[in-house]
Amino acid sequence: MNEQQPVQLRVGLAQVDTRVGDLAGNAELVTTWTAKAADAGAHLVVFPEMTLTGYPAEDLVLRESFARASELAVVDLAATLAERGLGDVAVVVGYLAHTSGSGPAPVDRPPTDDDRPGDANPRRGAPRNAAAFLHGGEVVARYYKRHLPNYGVFDEARYFVPGNELPVVRLHGVDVALTICEDLWVEGGPCGVAGQAGVDLVVSPNASPYERAKDDLRLPLVRRRAAEAHAPIVYCNQVGGQDELVFDGDSMVVGADGELLARAPQFVEHLLTVDLTLDPSARSHRAEGRIGPMTVTRHVLSEEPVAAFEAQPSTVVKPLTDCEEVWRALVMGLRDFIDKNGMKSVVLGMSGGIDSALVAALAVDALGADRVHGVGLPSKYSSEHSLSDAHDSANRLGMHYSVVPIAPMVDAFHGSVDLTGVAAENLQARVRGTLLMGLSNQHGHLLLATSNKSEVAVGYSTLYGDAAGGFAPIKDVPKTLVWDLARWRNEHARGRGDTEPIPQNSIDKPPSAELAPGQQDSDSLPSYEELDAVIADYVDRDLGMAELLERGHDAEVVARVLRLVDMAEFKRRQSAPGTKISLKAFGRDRRLPITNRWRESLPSVREGAAS
Amino acid sequence: MNEQQPVQLRVGLAQVDTRVGDLAGNAELVTTWTAKAADAGAHLVVFPEMTLTGYPAEDLVLRESFARASELAVVDLAATLAERGLGDVAVVVGYLAHTSGSGPAPVDRPPTDDDRPGDANPRRGAPRNAAAFLHGGEVVARYYKRHLPNYGVFDEARYFVPGNELPVVRLHGVDVALTICEDLWVEGGPCGVAGQAGVDLVVSPNASPYERAKDDLRLPLVRRRAAEAHAPIVYCNQVGGQDELVFDGDSMVVGADGELLARAPQFVEHLLTVDLTLDPSARSHRAEGRIGPMTVTRHVLSEEPVAAFEAQPSTVVKPLTDCEEVWRALVMGLRDFIDKNGMKSVVLGMSGGIDSALVAALAVDALGADRVHGVGLPSKYSSEHSLSDAHDSANRLGMHYSVVPIAPMVDAFHGSVDLTGVAAENLQARVRGTLLMGLSNQHGHLLLATSNKSEVAVGYSTLYGDAAGGFAPIKDVPKTLVWDLARWRNEHARGRGDTEPIPQNSIDKPPSAELAPGQQDSDSLPSYEELDAVIADYVDRDLGMAELLERGHDAEVVARVLRLVDMAEFKRRQSAPGTKISLKAFGRDRRLPITNRWRESLPSVREGAAS
Repeated sequence: MNEQQPVQLRVGLAQVDTRVGDLAGNAELVTTWTAKAADAGAHLVVFPEMTLTGYPAEDLVLRESFARASELAVVDLAATLAERGLGDVAVVVGYLAHTSGSGPAPVDRPPTDDDRPGDANPRRGAPRNAAAFLHGGEVVARYYKRHLPNYGVFDEARYFVPGNELPVVRLHGVDVALTICEDLWVEGGPCGVAGQAGVDLVVSPNASPYERAKDDLRLPLVRRRAAEAHAPIVYCNQVGGQDELVFDGDSMVVGADGELLARAPQFVEHLLTVDLTLDPSARSHRAEGRIGPMTVTRHVLSEEPVAAFEAQPSTVVKPLTDCEEVWRALVMGLRDFIDKNGMKSVVLGMSGGIDSALVAALAVDALGADRVHGVGLPSKYSSEHSLSDAHDSANRLGMHYSVVPIAPMVDAFHGSVDLTGVAAENLQARVRGTLLMGLSNQHGHLLLATSNKSEVAVGYSTLYGDAAGGFAPIKDVPKTLVWDLARWRNEHARGRGDTEPIPQNSIDKPPSAELAPGQQDSDSLPSYEELDAVIADYVDRDLGMAELLERGHDAEVVARVLRLVDMAEFKRRQSAPGTKISLKAFGRDRRLPITNRWRESLPSVREGAAS
Repeated sequence: MNEQQPVQLRVGLAQVDTRVGDLAGNAELVTTWTAKAADAGAHLVVFPEMTLTGYPAEDLVLRESFARASELAVVDLAATLAERGLGDVAVVVGYLAHTSGSGPAPVDRPPTDDDRPGDANPRRGAPRNAAAFLHGGEVVARYYKRHLPNYGVFDEARYFVPGNELPVVRLHGVDVALTICEDLWVEGGPCGVAGQAGVDLVVSPNASPYERAKDDLRLPLVRRRAAEAHAPIVYCNQVGGQDELVFDGDSMVVGADGELLARAPQFVEHLLTVDLTLDPSARSHRAEGRIGPMTVTRHVLSEEPVAAFEAQPSTVVKPLTDCEEVWRALVMGLRDFIDKNGMKSVVLGMSGGIDSALVAALAVDALGADRVHGVGLPSKYSSEHSLSDAHDSANRLGMHYSVVPIAPMVDAFHGSVDLTGVAAENLQARVRGTLLMGLSNQHGHLLLATSNKSEVAVGYSTLYGDAAGGFAPIKDVPKTLVWDLARWRNEHARGRGDTEPIPQNSIDKPPSAELAPGQQDSDSLPSYEELDAVIADYVDRDLGMAELLERGHDAEVVARVLRLVDMAEFKRRQSAPGTKISLKAFGRDRRLPITNRWRESLPSVREGAAS
């Protein structure tokens, strides 16, 4: 290789939106974006984690037919790229590997003669979370993810066998090491091994779900790994929604010295290119074989550096503000759930309150006004303003809107069964749910539930009533943030000279379910400021009673809120999926038993827990 | 220790029904059953896995306040046992250990400076699935489960840090090794280490969920481990229901030679005692320290053998027949869900069909007739026999029964919105669901959903309609088994000279949802024999298209069924929990994405998968 001068390389980060299970479609996506990268003069293109299968594929990973198809798909893809004249571009793509039988066993579950029929993993060979290095129509090298996250929303120990090999591919004289996502989070992991082995560049396909303020974590993290690897790190993250998760992209390249060289925008498919100038000749050694817990393998593709070219300045996108970031996450999560599931339109009940007004605005931003149908469902307890605000909201958004009073149905039920108190309140909510599901079935709309995280937490919603729906866009948004988002969205509209999409009245009026005369949320709940603060500490941070009181929450409020949260687990288990934006969302992220006698109390009165 | 003669030991296996989260209640349970064992003359009593916390505690394990309380509870328990004069009995009890900070890190997730706030595990010290050996008011030894199941319904890699120490406690001259559940499933695991170290007895607390025909697996398994350990194995499994799981007990003791020495009945709390005659003097060596992957520690409690006593013959209960076993599992799963959640009574819709008739019979067996309320909800499409059969069913069971025709409500909806076809069919189901939930809210009954596994699989149910309910007792029972169980239950009644609980008419008539004139299930579904066979292979065994055709299923039926199963995922995600009895139940056991473009097809036409 050229010993004397630095070597240039143009790297493309293809931050794409894949579809879970769509091997053929995702392969086509890779081909399309590789062509774009080639047009942009890239020599190496990096795609997100498990590009071909989509992420997370969950138990599809255990389906042998799917795993085998993925193995075939990555080989086909290499050939297709070459056929389309893209063989000279090096492509790093994620996929599901299925090294039948061979390789180490799944975590904690070695295949033995004792395997039960019910136990999928051991009998299914070795599924791996893999990245392939494609070039010249061939799969040049394969990397198997070493560190498998198995906390929060991640279950990778359920699915994958960890890898212990670190392939390093020499491209144009540059040694490129492959890693995947979680490998970056572990000190002394593959990046440390790469650092000891001696490499010029580390690429990292990712599927890192959006979480509020999470990007504040990624950059310093990538910096630490770059320092450990003594090489620049190319971090490519996917974008798009997948059930409860949304991925924000935010791909970046960080130099060996920790300098942020390039950063992609969030929540849009994007090709980020960066021109790197590397100096392989400055590297003292190039080790291979056993290093620490891994085995380093070297693959030489080409020694010849690329012809010198004029480096282009790369873009470093500034992160979005908190509210805009959350808004974009919610819009993308909703849009992708609807579109990827082939739904044409959505319907929602409009109460004139802030929650339905916000969901309507999100839906219109996500799908366009013509795909959004609002229905006002007034009862005898509905105030004047609830109908007028709902109508105003729909007008501002230009969406479809109609009104169906619920009295005839409610009266018919009361004529047949004797329902009072909460039963009568829930009846109204369920009549609305039944009406909306009827319209959903009749017209093929997907019903959107408008519950927010504060309500979902304390069970302040009616099962099969206002909780009904195929998707709950603001399920993980606390009420206080619902108001902040509404104000931000209106301000954003003003800034662009557009009509404010959310009626000020819906923002200002005191929240009420209007299921009983003069009812207000504050009758049965603490202030939303107090409630959301307790929820953040109890649900998101999982703090116990002693810690909650230490943090200054009111003891009586804590006791009430915790009881409500604990009691509502059975409702949450039947609730619609919604986009995760918080540290810990209800759903796959927080997995508590329904049958659960534990009640938080102070250690000194621990025995009371059973009563 | 006594070198010349064999040593006797009376061992008790306390197969108890614990409650998740009820540390104080479960501790009391241990004290009560230890007293029973002491009265029976036992020297050693073994309780199930995680006795004090209940199993599975799911994300409660990550709650630091709960983990700390569990650590205190096991120490308190040791003291309490001594205070109650039970200090001389050795007790092996399961609990959640919380060795703060210390110890190895969670699987694949070493604590580093990179830990994200969202990542509970690393920051929370080291939670472990533990067993404590209690004696004389003290915790004499602690064992930490080594092999953590993380497949099917198990997520132990999410929660626990694996152990690498094998404590061996000498009690009356007998060396007792501790293991936990999954450790038994692994060849060369702790039992192998115990065999190399030299022990006289292995105890194994378990939480092994019931699955049809699973007990056929346990005995040969325990036999293999006994041979590996060169010692008898005491296998104690819990009983009782916990959300979707039911534990059947089936505790057993197997001799070093593989002989089944004792076996407890299924589905009842039970104290099984067995008198062992061991010969420590025959053992060639007693190693400690590092052996294979583990470190063996020795703890001497007492060298003096127990005074010779007359050994009692122990009982070996014969396994139940398939139908009786399933029936008992369903009854226990339902009863424990209702009772452990503090519900007083249940309500269900009675259609005169086999599903509701079977669920009513299960509910009466589980709760008693006085706690079960049936409601007939006829529509204009209901046949004569549907009302009369429903009434007959309720009469035979002696349960509460009332009738509410749904026409007035259905008509009211039709007066307000235009619903036709499937939308009109679903409307009837949702009016029923709303009526039943109204009665549930008004009277505090828990609503039972009557959907069976065949319907849940293909989505042949109405969301918020017949799928509504807090628990679905036969959710994991295929329709063909529903009929078998009904026939068995009637036959069982005849055998005891009781009234047959299920109307023959409900068993014999062709199944129909009666949502449209003359409608029958066979109009839109294949025969249930065909359907259930495909479901068993596709859902339970996770087979792909090629394998399904190889197994002789009709190609057209397979294509139809798979499409229906794939499309119904969003409904299942909102369905009520129900007792798992099969290889793979819907719910925690099978985790597929809702947004999923993968469709099974023959490999040759793999690309078609995307269309």
